[in-house]
Amino acid sequence: MLSISLDQVRWDSQDLVPVVVQDAITHQVLMVAYMNREALQKTLNTGEAVFWSRSRQELWHKGATSGNVQIVRRILVDCDEDTLLLLVEPAGPACHTGETSCFHRVLSEFTVIENRTDTSHA
Amino acid sequence: MLSISLDQVRWDSQDLVPVVVQDAITHQVLMVAYMNREALQKTLNTGEAVFWSRSRQELWHKGATSGNVQIVRRILVDCDEDTLLLLVEPAGPACHTGETSCFHRVLSEFTVIENRTDTSHA
Repeated sequence: MLSISLDQVRWDSQDLVPVVVQDAITHQVLMVAYMNREALQKTLNTGEAVFWSRSRQELWHKGATSGNVQIVRRILVDCDEDTLLLLVEPAGPACHTGETSCFHRVLSEFTVIENRTDTSHA
Repeated sequence: MLSISLDQVRWDSQDLVPVVVQDAITHQVLMVAYMNREALQKTLNTGEAVFWSRSRQELWHKGATSGNVQIVRRILVDCDEDTLLLLVEPAGPACHTGETSCFHRVLSEFTVIENRTDTSHA
């Protein structure tokens, strides 16, 4: 697989990149967070996911208090170098609600369409 | 599964939300793009992924020219309602390079760590 260097990552106007976190085993998408260069460097140094908390404006070592760290198995970069994909082995739920994934609710308007489609095929 | 309404989506200062696109069958993460309210509404109306192109500043019906549309099977919303996850069936590659996923390169600095870890276990 082709590789790309840290120096080629394109940080946005706030010096951040969005980071998709996916379970390396189940392939479930767990969360989306943000990293600045320091967070990415700390992730590289420790092998555990470290983000930049936009609400608290500080480095956020995921699971530092809850124990639900994310061991990073692979870091992928997208074609325009402005988004990262972390494949991780999570020690526990990604979501503060206790759900495995932060994406645990469906958009209701689309659910209506899903059901309508099902009906038309029935 | 719990549901959430379109009206509860939290748009950012540019009236956008990031959208993770995942293959509904293979579970591969294909790309990250952005939607404004109109793009999301068109996605709901057509059942195909429509984004907002930040570079062109216009609606972007994915695959309109290439034919590589993305049939949307499910739309999930994250816990703080500012990110969407689309589960899609893609008609072709997501990436303009022809790769299945836009995430087709690894971060080289992390590859070094992966290899180093492998060596220590050998």
